[in-house]
Amino acid sequence: MASKKPLILISNDDGITAPGIQTLVKVMKKIGEVVVVAPDGPQSGMGHAITVANTLRLDKSTAFPDVEAYECSGTPADCVKLAKHHVLKNRQPDLVVSGINHGSNSSISVLYSGTMSAAIEAAIEGLPAIGFSLCDYGHEADFSHTEPFVEQIVRQALKHGIPVNTALNVNIPKNSATPIAGIKICRQAHARWQEEFDERLDPNKRRYFWMTGSFVNSDKGEDTDEWALANNYVSVVPCQFDLTAYHAIPQLNNEWELEEKPEMKDKKITEKAPN
Amino acid sequence: MASKKPLILISNDDGITAPGIQTLVKVMKKIGEVVVVAPDGPQSGMGHAITVANTLRLDKSTAFPDVEAYECSGTPADCVKLAKHHVLKNRQPDLVVSGINHGSNSSISVLYSGTMSAAIEAAIEGLPAIGFSLCDYGHEADFSHTEPFVEQIVRQALKHGIPVNTALNVNIPKNSATPIAGIKICRQAHARWQEEFDERLDPNKRRYFWMTGSFVNSDKGEDTDEWALANNYVSVVPCQFDLTAYHAIPQLNNEWELEEKPEMKDKKITEKAPN
Repeated sequence: MASKKPLILISNDDGITAPGIQTLVKVMKKIGEVVVVAPDGPQSGMGHAITVANTLRLDKSTAFPDVEAYECSGTPADCVKLAKHHVLKNRQPDLVVSGINHGSNSSISVLYSGTMSAAIEAAIEGLPAIGFSLCDYGHEADFSHTEPFVEQIVRQALKHGIPVNTALNVNIPKNSATPIAGIKICRQAHARWQEEFDERLDPNKRRYFWMTGSFVNSDKGEDTDEWALANNYVSVVPCQFDLTAYHAIPQLNNEWELEEKPEMKDKKITEKAPN
Repeated sequence: MASKKPLILISNDDGITAPGIQTLVKVMKKIGEVVVVAPDGPQSGMGHAITVANTLRLDKSTAFPDVEAYECSGTPADCVKLAKHHVLKNRQPDLVVSGINHGSNSSISVLYSGTMSAAIEAAIEGLPAIGFSLCDYGHEADFSHTEPFVEQIVRQALKHGIPVNTALNVNIPKNSATPIAGIKICRQAHARWQEEFDERLDPNKRRYFWMTGSFVNSDKGEDTDEWALANNYVSVVPCQFDLTAYHAIPQLNNEWELEEKPEMKDKKITEKAPN
């Protein structure tokens, strides 16, 4: 049993032909048995979108020699759902990895990230999951320096597990002359994108927009992913899918005057509609 | 100043012609000055998707008499971004409301919900925001019973505010013979969708899938949105956009053997790459 190779499911959001997933497949093949189910084209910025009102395609792919791989017409979250419930069926993956995304998914970008939605979808399904992103948007981004970090993190995840109901958001600094300082467990920085809209006219003189913007980080904490990345660390943020702001519940209960405050102790339900 | 009507921005994910947004506009017109920026077609299940690799259209809409309204080619999150940074510019909305969604967005569905992504996007932008959903998927769903609850919740939000960095996820039971029991502040139930894929052949004998599935709630808590809805309450869950699983950070720091553990006290950065 101990010698059985772990089953690792791989997805991404840049599509099955993107360079980042090549690196991920290469490293994962050293560690386990690999199955790939990835979008058949780019799905960046898809957040946690799923395909509810349309059909899904799933076809065998030859993108990776010696690897069972499928390309899917859907979103990253669709890919994980199809992988678990159709492709793998009774084969339970030991780990789901997503990426390596071409560009950062740190801080608030985790919400917009298809890479992380694949990982979070896996966590919802009860599977240990990690999303990897490289902080380099360049067309010729170099992924080679990420390999030892990806391998180390995946081996730790397989050895120690990932905290239940979380998925790890791993961001790796761009390759540079400065060696990467290490791996740091972080919290999500409180930052946001400050959008601007570039207004243009099409050849028919109809108006259209490009969304542009800059990243604004007002969080000075030294325990954030942004701090870690700015200091050349690989950042690891455990992410949860329970969005409840628990701290806000007493505030709402105390301040808001709701006509019917349910009395939980005796579970009395007052069958009266408000005015 | 006290008599100035609040400015309320409205969006949704079912599209600007959906019945739910009609109800929301009707109720909001009683309370404030209304501006609508909504998708030009259905965007259900879009999660927190944004349009990064494509252009956006934004055109004046005549969907609502006497209301400034725009239809947008993008996602619900795009609509809020365009509204804040282009349509409203220097007019700061006092509240952003999204919906009323045609179907429940309780529990885990909050992650897949375009309705809630519009509200959460507004919260990220620092605006008080509420997403409303009706737990009725029927084509002829009746929204009329939601009006007093929507009005009450919006008036409370304008009076007392919404806890900072949160957006409210409001779900309203389907209209039935049983009157609604009241409004309850809740946490997100720990539940998930159990997917199945309905495999078919197209006229060219190529395989395709429909995603189907059933909702599985293993959370027996009586403080959840699912419990509230099952007991005919309107559920209100404050949702945050900081996904950090804070409780998981010590576990990772203690259990994982990372080669480089940063020493935060003296902020020493060991400039050594791992093996």
